[in-house]
Amino acid sequence: MSDDAQDLGITESKSHKPGEWYAEVVQKADLADYAPMGGFIVTKPRGYALWEGIQDALDGWFKETGVDNAYFPMFIPESFLEREKDIVEGFDPEVAWVTQGGHDELEERLAVRPTSESIIAPFMADWIRSHRDLPMRLNQWCSVVRWEATETKPFFRTKEFLWQEGHTAHATDGEAWEEVWTRLDQYARVLEEVLAVPVLRGRKPDHDKFPGAETTTCVEALMPDGKSVQSATSHHLGQSFAEAFDITFADEAEDEQTAFTTSWGLSWRALGAMIMTHSDDQGLVLPPTIAPTQVVIVPIWQADTKEDVLEYSEGIATDLETAGFSVELDDRDERNPGFKFNEHELNGVPLRLEIGPNEVDDEEVTLVHRPDSEQTVADRDGIVDAVDAHLDQIFEKLYDAAAANLDENVREAHSPEKILGTIGQHGGYVKTPWCGDEACETVIKDEIAAEIVMQPVDDQGGASAGEPVRPDEDATCGVCDEPADEIAYFAKSY
Amino acid sequence: MSDDAQDLGITESKSHKPGEWYAEVVQKADLADYAPMGGFIVTKPRGYALWEGIQDALDGWFKETGVDNAYFPMFIPESFLEREKDIVEGFDPEVAWVTQGGHDELEERLAVRPTSESIIAPFMADWIRSHRDLPMRLNQWCSVVRWEATETKPFFRTKEFLWQEGHTAHATDGEAWEEVWTRLDQYARVLEEVLAVPVLRGRKPDHDKFPGAETTTCVEALMPDGKSVQSATSHHLGQSFAEAFDITFADEAEDEQTAFTTSWGLSWRALGAMIMTHSDDQGLVLPPTIAPTQVVIVPIWQADTKEDVLEYSEGIATDLETAGFSVELDDRDERNPGFKFNEHELNGVPLRLEIGPNEVDDEEVTLVHRPDSEQTVADRDGIVDAVDAHLDQIFEKLYDAAAANLDENVREAHSPEKILGTIGQHGGYVKTPWCGDEACETVIKDEIAAEIVMQPVDDQGGASAGEPVRPDEDATCGVCDEPADEIAYFAKSY
Ligand SMILES: [Zn+2]
Ligand SMILES: [Zn+2]
Repeated sequence: MSDDAQDLGITESKSHKPGEWYAEVVQKADLADYAPMGGFIVTKPRGYALWEGIQDALDGWFKETGVDNAYFPMFIPESFLEREKDIVEGFDPEVAWVTQGGHDELEERLAVRPTSESIIAPFMADWIRSHRDLPMRLNQWCSVVRWEATETKPFFRTKEFLWQEGHTAHATDGEAWEEVWTRLDQYARVLEEVLAVPVLRGRKPDHDKFPGAETTTCVEALMPDGKSVQSATSHHLGQSFAEAFDITFADEAEDEQTAFTTSWGLSWRALGAMIMTHSDDQGLVLPPTIAPTQVVIVPIWQADTKEDVLEYSEGIATDLETAGFSVELDDRDERNPGFKFNEHELNGVPLRLEIGPNEVDDEEVTLVHRPDSEQTVADRDGIVDAVDAHLDQIFEKLYDAAAANLDENVREAHSPEKILGTIGQHGGYVKTPWCGDEACETVIKDEIAAEIVMQPVDDQGGASAGEPVRPDEDATCGVCDEPADEIAYFAKSY
Repeated sequence: MSDDAQDLGITESKSHKPGEWYAEVVQKADLADYAPMGGFIVTKPRGYALWEGIQDALDGWFKETGVDNAYFPMFIPESFLEREKDIVEGFDPEVAWVTQGGHDELEERLAVRPTSESIIAPFMADWIRSHRDLPMRLNQWCSVVRWEATETKPFFRTKEFLWQEGHTAHATDGEAWEEVWTRLDQYARVLEEVLAVPVLRGRKPDHDKFPGAETTTCVEALMPDGKSVQSATSHHLGQSFAEAFDITFADEAEDEQTAFTTSWGLSWRALGAMIMTHSDDQGLVLPPTIAPTQVVIVPIWQADTKEDVLEYSEGIATDLETAGFSVELDDRDERNPGFKFNEHELNGVPLRLEIGPNEVDDEEVTLVHRPDSEQTVADRDGIVDAVDAHLDQIFEKLYDAAAANLDENVREAHSPEKILGTIGQHGGYVKTPWCGDEACETVIKDEIAAEIVMQPVDDQGGASAGEPVRPDEDATCGVCDEPADEIAYFAKSY
């Protein structure tokens, strides 16, 4: 690493050049680096630790709700991919193919999995015999490859990406729907409670759902630049895969029935959404819920005060570690406090404790919040409680700012001009009744690359869960003015 | 699943047909299934849970000893693979190649990683500038692909397998050696303390080391059928990769130096070794240290005793769960106790608690050890301590039996006839002085497919760590009778 301070700091502006700024934050905060093959990245330790934070939360919730981890081959024979026609149409253009093994040409091409329905479904078909084998819930943490020829954006657009993919089979349509909602709720929860990113829950329009799905539900997060990020999806696959792969079971009357399946995935896009939401022109900002280092202690000494300041700082570090916080005491000799402040700001440590001779004399500690540099002085006694409270405040600051951005940026508009104008001026979402015709989306898309990113659904659970929320009875489409019985959220998206 | 009891039980014999028996245990205990493409398996939830057990232990130890997790692309451009000549020679025959992305031929073939030195080393070269950046220790949990055309044996021989691969860079040869030993010790520890499989530590003969390595060290476990399993390896790569990829650093005097690198990996073979070591003709046997279910409670009731027996059983289950054991109370109505006993034996639950009306009346519990069906009665009071002690005993039984097998099966022999005869008769290891000439190994290998699986090394740490253990000064080669200054362990191997 170069020691040049200018090299270390962020030079791009989040508000003026969000794309360049994002790329700079990711690289300079040591989250990821670009691989030699276009479209691939290396996830560095500081970035991977964030992914592990998501895994820890989500994997625990999955296991509490009946999901078993498993591992399926990374390759899918072409003939398997072809068995569900929507999947092959949807993914064929972006599959990476293995055609040679050692020095031999393979008889059949193998797809590097773009998603694993086509290799998991045949095993489910084999393993499920009776209604007693249902529900079956499997998950794997792995990477997938989709050969898209677009510009690389770490965690947002890469040819290989890390994710988890859940695959389940159920005896009834209703149970499959419950599954879809359980997972979407867990995704919303990880975004909101771990990443401090509020989301909207909805479904994709029919023309944009997952290949083979009956319904694709999603959580969408609004970025500060006004674009929406699809952060996770949960698909009701109906019986399409069950029929294509013969996932059947004997019901209680010993009659053969076809199962209903679901699949659901969250990728490292959720990380990208978090980084983009909270970070700023000083670098990365992380909520304390996922920060690998929650608290950094920076001692400030002169030669004659060094011993006292360090001893005092070490005592505080020990107290905080004992209480379960992850703490770094930055006692490097070769760096001055200002350099350290900048570095820990760049790296997104949520809370900084500054300790100089004054703090030692007064038995106090100075606390500085990463998001807004708010500074407080707390008593040495009760520092554990104070840190706990301040970390909560920092989380709330991040969440509240993002929630305010989301609240302010859902607007209604009715007419192509108003929809275009509203998105053009403010970004964010425009909510409008929609006739259901893809052509009406095209009108908007052709002008400003905004599309229907989401349609609101009933998220109260029960029999109507997943049902679209309907507009008033006499509503007309915000684009063509024909009768409309759906609601669409238009937005630009990542 | 078929309900036919004969279908459920193991029909092959471990002593007579170890290969068929192993395959049957893996499938019937629901650990893995065969994929449609030869050479690939699906790791089912019960098998994957075992892999997670290994991950939990090893990942924690890695992090305690300075290792950071990261993630590198699964593809390696052919030109990168070619930069270290031994790697390309060693792996080229067994690389799976991606040649098409979407509908386009790629300009350069991409190797599906067979191991990641060639993609990690260039990044290390980029990230390491100064001695302050060293040591650098990276690890990833992932799968790799090696296109070997041999018969599939789950967890032992598959074209894709799960593993972790650690990659480190150091300022000195000595520090690299310390790293090699640290990891080999952790591998030995996971085998011995988690999987209850005692191992020998050693190095591979020069002609069998990892491509590009200066020294390959290994842990070897002896299977009950007399064959050795290489369960993990830790490579001192010297400066070959550092030179090929320019991993250099400025030392304290600002002079440019070339780093020393290591790599080390443990794959799911370690699981295979554990399954094969402990399991028996009733099915899987697991040490309590890794069993997803440590204790199964089987209540035995008649209609009039059901309520009492169940209530009593539930109280015990709660006590054990509270104490931190993983417990299953098998209160299924539709199965009789005998069926349940067989099923939990097949699945390798280490300890079974049988509770009938007598146990309830006498305030006792009957405990049965999975490995040898040893039966004890314990008081209901103090059941938590009793279970704790019995699980320890079960672990010791498994470990001691495997250790005894290992101890009894290291024999000395001197002459090709005696080496061949000893291995032919007993299996196991034959220890003999060796001149270092591969031709002497060939003499044995051609006759009975036994080879030098290991050479003992000084494992006391410090400056001599990794140095070969030498025979007496006047020793002669056990094969050709020429002067010998090395020791070889011959064995058949998986
Ligand atoms: Zn319309
Ligand atoms: Zn010889």
